[in-house]
Amino acid sequence: MSQRDNLKRLLAPRHLAFIGGRSMARALKRCAAGGFAGPLWLVNPQHAELEGVPCVASVAELPEGPDATFIATNKELTLQAVAELAAKGAGGAICYASGFAETGAEGEALQRRLLQAAGEMALLGPNCYGLLDYLHGAALWPVAHGGRQVDKGVAVLTQSGNFAYNLSMSDRSLPVAYMASVGNQAQLGVAELMDVLLDEPRVTAIGLHLEGLKNVPGFARAAHKALEKGIPLIALKTGVSQIGAELALSHTSSLAGSDALYDALFERLGVIRVSGPVSFMETLKAAACGKLPAGPSLTALACSGGDAGLIADYAERNDLPLLGLEDGQRAALAGVLPDYANITNPLDFTTAIWGDATALQAMLDNSLNSQADAALLVLDYPDQASGERPQCDLLLQLFCDALQHHGKSGLVTSAFPELLPASARDYLHARGVAALQGVEDGLAAWGRIAHYRQRREALLARGESALVPLCPRPLAAGEQLLDEWQAKQALGGFGLPLPRGCLSTPGQALQAAQDIGYPLVLKALSSALPHKTEVGGVALNLRNEAALQAALDDMRASLARYAPQVRFDQVLLEAMAPAPLAELIVGIKRENGFALALVLGAGGILVELLKDSRSLLLPTTDAAIREALLSLRSAPLLQGFRGRPAVDLEALVRAIRAVADYACEHAERLLELDVNPLLVNAQGCVAVDALIRLGQDRGDNHAS
Amino acid sequence: MSQRDNLKRLLAPRHLAFIGGRSMARALKRCAAGGFAGPLWLVNPQHAELEGVPCVASVAELPEGPDATFIATNKELTLQAVAELAAKGAGGAICYASGFAETGAEGEALQRRLLQAAGEMALLGPNCYGLLDYLHGAALWPVAHGGRQVDKGVAVLTQSGNFAYNLSMSDRSLPVAYMASVGNQAQLGVAELMDVLLDEPRVTAIGLHLEGLKNVPGFARAAHKALEKGIPLIALKTGVSQIGAELALSHTSSLAGSDALYDALFERLGVIRVSGPVSFMETLKAAACGKLPAGPSLTALACSGGDAGLIADYAERNDLPLLGLEDGQRAALAGVLPDYANITNPLDFTTAIWGDATALQAMLDNSLNSQADAALLVLDYPDQASGERPQCDLLLQLFCDALQHHGKSGLVTSAFPELLPASARDYLHARGVAALQGVEDGLAAWGRIAHYRQRREALLARGESALVPLCPRPLAAGEQLLDEWQAKQALGGFGLPLPRGCLSTPGQALQAAQDIGYPLVLKALSSALPHKTEVGGVALNLRNEAALQAALDDMRASLARYAPQVRFDQVLLEAMAPAPLAELIVGIKRENGFALALVLGAGGILVELLKDSRSLLLPTTDAAIREALLSLRSAPLLQGFRGRPAVDLEALVRAIRAVADYACEHAERLLELDVNPLLVNAQGCVAVDALIRLGQDRGDNHAS
Repeated sequence: MSQRDNLKRLLAPRHLAFIGGRSMARALKRCAAGGFAGPLWLVNPQHAELEGVPCVASVAELPEGPDATFIATNKELTLQAVAELAAKGAGGAICYASGFAETGAEGEALQRRLLQAAGEMALLGPNCYGLLDYLHGAALWPVAHGGRQVDKGVAVLTQSGNFAYNLSMSDRSLPVAYMASVGNQAQLGVAELMDVLLDEPRVTAIGLHLEGLKNVPGFARAAHKALEKGIPLIALKTGVSQIGAELALSHTSSLAGSDALYDALFERLGVIRVSGPVSFMETLKAAACGKLPAGPSLTALACSGGDAGLIADYAERNDLPLLGLEDGQRAALAGVLPDYANITNPLDFTTAIWGDATALQAMLDNSLNSQADAALLVLDYPDQASGERPQCDLLLQLFCDALQHHGKSGLVTSAFPELLPASARDYLHARGVAALQGVEDGLAAWGRIAHYRQRREALLARGESALVPLCPRPLAAGEQLLDEWQAKQALGGFGLPLPRGCLSTPGQALQAAQDIGYPLVLKALSSALPHKTEVGGVALNLRNEAALQAALDDMRASLARYAPQVRFDQVLLEAMAPAPLAELIVGIKRENGFALALVLGAGGILVELLKDSRSLLLPTTDAAIREALLSLRSAPLLQGFRGRPAVDLEALVRAIRAVADYACEHAERLLELDVNPLLVNAQGCVAVDALIRLGQDRGDNHAS
Repeated sequence: MSQRDNLKRLLAPRHLAFIGGRSMARALKRCAAGGFAGPLWLVNPQHAELEGVPCVASVAELPEGPDATFIATNKELTLQAVAELAAKGAGGAICYASGFAETGAEGEALQRRLLQAAGEMALLGPNCYGLLDYLHGAALWPVAHGGRQVDKGVAVLTQSGNFAYNLSMSDRSLPVAYMASVGNQAQLGVAELMDVLLDEPRVTAIGLHLEGLKNVPGFARAAHKALEKGIPLIALKTGVSQIGAELALSHTSSLAGSDALYDALFERLGVIRVSGPVSFMETLKAAACGKLPAGPSLTALACSGGDAGLIADYAERNDLPLLGLEDGQRAALAGVLPDYANITNPLDFTTAIWGDATALQAMLDNSLNSQADAALLVLDYPDQASGERPQCDLLLQLFCDALQHHGKSGLVTSAFPELLPASARDYLHARGVAALQGVEDGLAAWGRIAHYRQRREALLARGESALVPLCPRPLAAGEQLLDEWQAKQALGGFGLPLPRGCLSTPGQALQAAQDIGYPLVLKALSSALPHKTEVGGVALNLRNEAALQAALDDMRASLARYAPQVRFDQVLLEAMAPAPLAELIVGIKRENGFALALVLGAGGILVELLKDSRSLLLPTTDAAIREALLSLRSAPLLQGFRGRPAVDLEALVRAIRAVADYACEHAERLLELDVNPLLVNAQGCVAVDALIRLGQDRGDNHAS
């Protein structure tokens, strides 16, 4: 049976086994109490029974290979148990023990042996809390947990067992189908789990709490599958900070990668990134507990002006348009509400009609009779002693009825997170309405989800999500720097536009210049001279022979002084490019084990002031390049700034595509590439300088 | 007795009166139950008793003028009651009724009568929920509330009664001393309340939930007082969005003002701005429930790698430095923690020592023996059924002991907001440790407070907070545009550096140019021509007489064609300014009823790309101008960008000060002022163009 099939057994087990002591007997009893329907076995060689649960002495004595096993022994015995389970034809095993790859070289070796022992058996961990499966009531889990069985729900994959533990305890009414703590991801990682979970129709969304990814191509394939299926992925990725990145490495041996590249990866695949536990929970609820809205527009209701003010601000911040009321609507609402009510969207329907079912229903019917994609109600439950809770319940019921009647998506949120009690949340979720806690977090969560459908379509049309990112391996020591001429010729071969130019010796430069024409640029050329400008190796805008001759003399003197190691025997002559409408930098950034990224940014003076760049993982598409360019802060410079002409955007995309194509072709060896600047004009663009650094040459000749 | 003294009576009442029906009887009983110690009177002309509470028939029959009265009658009877209370020598009255200024002109007239009736009696409202006073147990409040009496706590002032109601119900353990719903602020507004509350030593911080301010100078005076006393002010200001600003106007007749000017006001006065109810609560807790830290550095502890990862990211995001561990500390911790523990800050002390008091104490003692300003513990309480809560309690106790032992400020936060239960929060607050809910919100809240002390000192040194902002009144119709020469002369009189130049006629321009010297600039001059460039009225960089003559001819032709209404009879000749290191725009923005603001921004191409400007309310100080300049995104251009020289910053500050001085001197009439561009160089700066628009001239002659 394949590993993937064994993983399916682990995620829908017919029988469970636990290997360990007293705490495993308790874990087994929790599964029985939690509704697991199949046989439950406990393996312990030292006891005939533990906590009233009978034990078998060894894996060999089990009646058959269990679909799912939790191994809670030390690391050496874990290795043995995994081998025995694999031999018995078990489905999947969870390894709780730590002391593997997260501890250094010795642990890494042990982890490799563990992996071999598992063979085709599915293996979660080591160094993990395991799996909570609330579809089948299987808690393969060492300690207590706070969840309950569900018909459908989200899957949460996390690199922190404690995060999962706390999430299961949290009082937020998120329906969880699966929660997996993936630990070291020796075999099963986030990507493999996602792939199988996406085939389970009862999984409504997937939440990822990541320190780093081990398998970027696999993740990208799974995320693209989610995008095609329309299953939202929500990611809380830590290790943004320097210290955080170091912690990730030591905690689960995750290589954090640079955060900007994670953004690029998530953006490419429509993964919704959130910043903390609350936004993680609330966004998952928005995705999974209601009806996904067709779009972002809202009709919003509150019973106070204060709440209406908050709604207005948060709706704008999250790009949720509040459609204006139509005249008929306005008139109808005026008939229901008191004189002093301000009839607008968001609507403060006032407490004047509080508890009046007929008036509330009329207000709701008129408000929801709109073009908006969804309706929002802000409501805070006061405490029991206030005696107001029945009126709150009534309002929720009428709101749900009105949503149903008008076929609208809906959400309810309280201004203060804790003032939407569990009973109200459960009621709303049962009626297909998302119950979000806190108006600020709630509208932010809704904003992420309300744009999902349109974003998904745009991403699928862009075509990039279907391309598996390149994942370059580390290279051996040694590297090769191409000189400017070589770099330009290499890129020119892929279609990058270059200035008219030629190589020459200093002595023949005047002769060669006749073919180029003036004004021109003179550059000293040597791969030993990556930074020509600093040593006087570049002369711009030479208008005639005299100027060229003077520049040659100056350059010879300057190099002799500032770069005596360089022989002044080769120069590059190029036509001077006209003043551009915009300057760009186009570069390639390599992160071993993660991706090769194309980085586009504003050049010239703006580099330092704007910090304006976008990264695209390779391979990419023209549509993605175009969108990245137009999302730069300096994009106005490309689009006809202050009455100037617009640049030739398609020529620019072709030029950038040439760089991308070169990089893809040389992905194995390419360490660094920079085209800086790429001068952009209405008639096209031209690469004025270029730098390429390649890893150790293994005899092939891709560089030129 | 003065209004201020009467307000003091309202905020520390010896006796309370309620005027109204059955609901007021219940409100009175709530005060008795809530611990109010003095006499309680109920006024109702139609009943001898209500809900078992005896009534007097009129205000006149009360034994004396009550210190505090809640009036819950309709608006007409409210007017009458206010007059009677004032006559009786009452302290303060709260007017619950709506239908006043928030409803339009008629209501405004009624509100003016209400104000007259109150005289020197303190008056809160109308259109407000009133006052919750948890120091004295006085709930002058129409409905239930969720608070309890406290020894000290924060004061919350809000324009939304519902916000106050919900806040009182929220399960966040914020100790509230006062909560006031200010409604229409007919007499007592946010500023007046702040001023008196700041004299109550049991008020530890003030929270403001604002739609807009009615009295900016008063607010600034009170906020400066708070800054001097070191009482943090936390503001949640709504009306950021367009729709929100409109709502604010209709809800409590608040003029929102432009949000950027609120930012400028808050920044000037050290008011900490937050974005929602949660950050409002948590920041108030951080300010009021622990020991204010001396600075931002942190020692952080968690029992999981996942939490440590979150801490690292949020600490960096909120500028809370995580100091590295010292060698001795590291060694001591290694002696307590298991091998696999990663000994760093933030410290994941692991669950290996969970429940082991001796080991936990050693871990805490070693961790807190550091230079950090405060210590953070992240801890989530699982549910009761887990059996883990006693261990959590133990850890909190040991943490508090260690904080006390090391004399450190501290905070505890849970990853998930609801997993720090009320009992734990109460315990922590009793020990002077802030209990913040949610690690993301908690660290953001702490970040705002941890920088307070240093920020306060810097602001007091800057001197701006002590200056009361100008608050210009609306002007009558009619305005006057100064031409460029007049505007420059006016500003030059205050010290703004100008190019060498003179007025001339077109016919005498060649002659006049001899005094200026070439290259020079020629501009057509007329106050009917504010936009000269568009109609060919500007010629730059004229290098000699021939060029000037040609420019004069072209200009005459161009104006005749594009601006035939303008007589070409006056020109301005100026020396051409050299290419600058930076271009700035310096402007004045008038918001009637709010402030006159000096706006500094990047000029030239950067205006549209960077959107880089800072606003300072007038009057301001040189230190504030300098700080604003250096906080521009384009500030690197001023500080020696890419090897160029730095600009003369002090000359630049003097030039901007000249504009500010002109504006302060002409505050009553100044509608608009723009110096664009101000060219800045290493040797100084020069204003190349200027525009001034003044309101109706009332015969004075300030303009020239």
